[in-house]
Amino acid sequence: MKIAVLPGDGIGPEVVREALKVLEVVEKKTGKTFEKVFGHIGGDAIDRFGEPLPEETKKICLEADAIFLGSVGGPKWDDLPPEKRPEIGGLLALRKMLNLYANIRPIKVYRSLVHVSPLKEKVIGSGVDLVTVRELSYGVYYGQPRGLDEEKGFDTMIYDRKTVERIARTAFEIAKNRRKKVTSVDKANVLYSSMLWRKVVNEVAREYPDVELTHMYVDNAAMQLILKPSQFDVILTTNMFGDILSDESAALPGSLGLLPSASFGDKNLYEPAGGSAPDIAGKNIANPIAQILSLAMMLEHSFGMVEEARKIERAVELVIEEGYRTRDIAEDPEKAVSTSQMGDLICKKL
Amino acid sequence: MKIAVLPGDGIGPEVVREALKVLEVVEKKTGKTFEKVFGHIGGDAIDRFGEPLPEETKKICLEADAIFLGSVGGPKWDDLPPEKRPEIGGLLALRKMLNLYANIRPIKVYRSLVHVSPLKEKVIGSGVDLVTVRELSYGVYYGQPRGLDEEKGFDTMIYDRKTVERIARTAFEIAKNRRKKVTSVDKANVLYSSMLWRKVVNEVAREYPDVELTHMYVDNAAMQLILKPSQFDVILTTNMFGDILSDESAALPGSLGLLPSASFGDKNLYEPAGGSAPDIAGKNIANPIAQILSLAMMLEHSFGMVEEARKIERAVELVIEEGYRTRDIAEDPEKAVSTSQMGDLICKKL
Ligand SMILES: CC(C)[C@H](C(=O)O)[C@@H](O)C(=O)O
Ligand SMILES: CC(C)[C@H](C(=O)O)[C@@H](O)C(=O)O
Repeated sequence: MKIAVLPGDGIGPEVVREALKVLEVVEKKTGKTFEKVFGHIGGDAIDRFGEPLPEETKKICLEADAIFLGSVGGPKWDDLPPEKRPEIGGLLALRKMLNLYANIRPIKVYRSLVHVSPLKEKVIGSGVDLVTVRELSYGVYYGQPRGLDEEKGFDTMIYDRKTVERIARTAFEIAKNRRKKVTSVDKANVLYSSMLWRKVVNEVAREYPDVELTHMYVDNAAMQLILKPSQFDVILTTNMFGDILSDESAALPGSLGLLPSASFGDKNLYEPAGGSAPDIAGKNIANPIAQILSLAMMLEHSFGMVEEARKIERAVELVIEEGYRTRDIAEDPEKAVSTSQMGDLICKKL
Repeated sequence: MKIAVLPGDGIGPEVVREALKVLEVVEKKTGKTFEKVFGHIGGDAIDRFGEPLPEETKKICLEADAIFLGSVGGPKWDDLPPEKRPEIGGLLALRKMLNLYANIRPIKVYRSLVHVSPLKEKVIGSGVDLVTVRELSYGVYYGQPRGLDEEKGFDTMIYDRKTVERIARTAFEIAKNRRKKVTSVDKANVLYSSMLWRKVVNEVAREYPDVELTHMYVDNAAMQLILKPSQFDVILTTNMFGDILSDESAALPGSLGLLPSASFGDKNLYEPAGGSAPDIAGKNIANPIAQILSLAMMLEHSFGMVEEARKIERAVELVIEEGYRTRDIAEDPEKAVSTSQMGDLICKKL
């Protein structure tokens, strides 16, 4: 079992370190061992090798069973030409190389952290427990042609039947094991790419008579996520809208530092939902939970270790219930624990 | 002083009726009179004349000093070909014809309605008082080429220097008279159209040394609007992102029924931020306040009647403070007043 570990930029290295501590505990308990091969990506790779996704990193990823990523990007590399930046040249290129077509982000408002949520308790209602299923391989992120000169900049927003069918099936399959509701989000009253999206999603829906499908315009969805988030089970949407709505949803629990993600493709990639947070990098104050829960998703989806995944999730919940908090979720920042303390606490609980 | 009045679909006609009652009070008080020419648009026009923006309506708009719109669209017309639908063929075509390049939506959380906001009081903090300035004439809404067939659908997301310069100036001018902060929202780490956007906004910013400019990625903005909405003063953004973020912002006060908007172009157009709300249309329960505040914006921006605008806004606030509420903002729906009662109350207060 081989894992490509790419810590990346910003808080990436420090939170990945904590997740690997947790993995070590899992290894000791189960007797199973993982081969961890470290690679460089993003700004980290630019600084060392002059490019955001070096050949060596590609090789490491292609030879691994799963990719475990920290985060990429930061103001330091913002003035490079687009294709050389950590995001387009690093993360997006890696997504393309691995054919990552689905980004899955489960979002839960923890009962013991309801005070951290920006939403009123009555809005959270019976609880927020949703999954965003974002198409990750196409749309305006990759559409051709695109270009930039002194006078104009343009991109192509495009979807084809095959791509929509595949991501729709992913969403319906996930919904089958949950509350059986899919909300497909598009802008089919204006965008031609969305009209195709809606049509194909309707077709795929016929294969899943048990799952209820609703369509929602993206502007309305952005509003409904705040007004009544408990109405959502699985949100199925495009690359661009998914980027926006999954981050918006990520605000509901009150901190990005809690949310894992998995991307499915030729090989699966696991990374926290949050960004590289350069402002707090290197201070040992970032929340490692998102990275640790991404590890749990990896154990479950790439290595079939469902029980271990559940145990990690349970350990995280217990530590939170006991009142331990990093700064991002602490009521009293004075009492916050550090990144490494949080990692240790979760290891101990496990 | 000539106004084109286009009630449109859904709740449009009933809320426009209330706003016109308010206008009548203004006319009586000031001795000024407005010529109101009624026209049909959207589904309403499709049902009567077979097209969403008939020649007659165009003529009425071109001859008027300002356009006062209700809302367009509804499920009834969703299966028509794109260019024949209320949205693309009606509203978007009208926006194009009038060269509407800026959509301005002021968003305020009323102190006496803090209980309606989905956000916790501590998140609302010192208050939410922001304006979204959405580019309305270009971007992926109008970019060419675009198309749809059985296999694929595509749109072009495009910005040019001139268009960005113009909307950026609008935003900076508005900020000058407010808290002097502009947050420009884009996705310049991925989209080429956003890279141009950011570059040109930076250039325009140099003309406004007193105004502070920040750039924010759209995914982060969607999150920050919930986590810390009070950080925003003027949000400057593209057509597509503006559609999403202005509706998201519109959720902060707890009801779309409170929010007006103005669009600037060859002639200005005024309409509520909310949609046609077909589910509650014709029931005399919709909130007419958004339409009434749009009237106030019209008096101010198209007819220089600043004092009358302030008086209408004050009347609305007083009626709310006295505890009168339509269903959308009522704590106890049983005690809610109807659309026409709310209109009457505001007229009386005025
Ligand atoms: C860093 C950026 C390119 C990326 C995206 O937009 O996909 C990020 O926001 C994400 O959501 O993973
Ligand atoms: C009806 C629709 C075309 C329109 C838009 O997306 O611009 C609406 O959502 C709005 O924001 O005015």
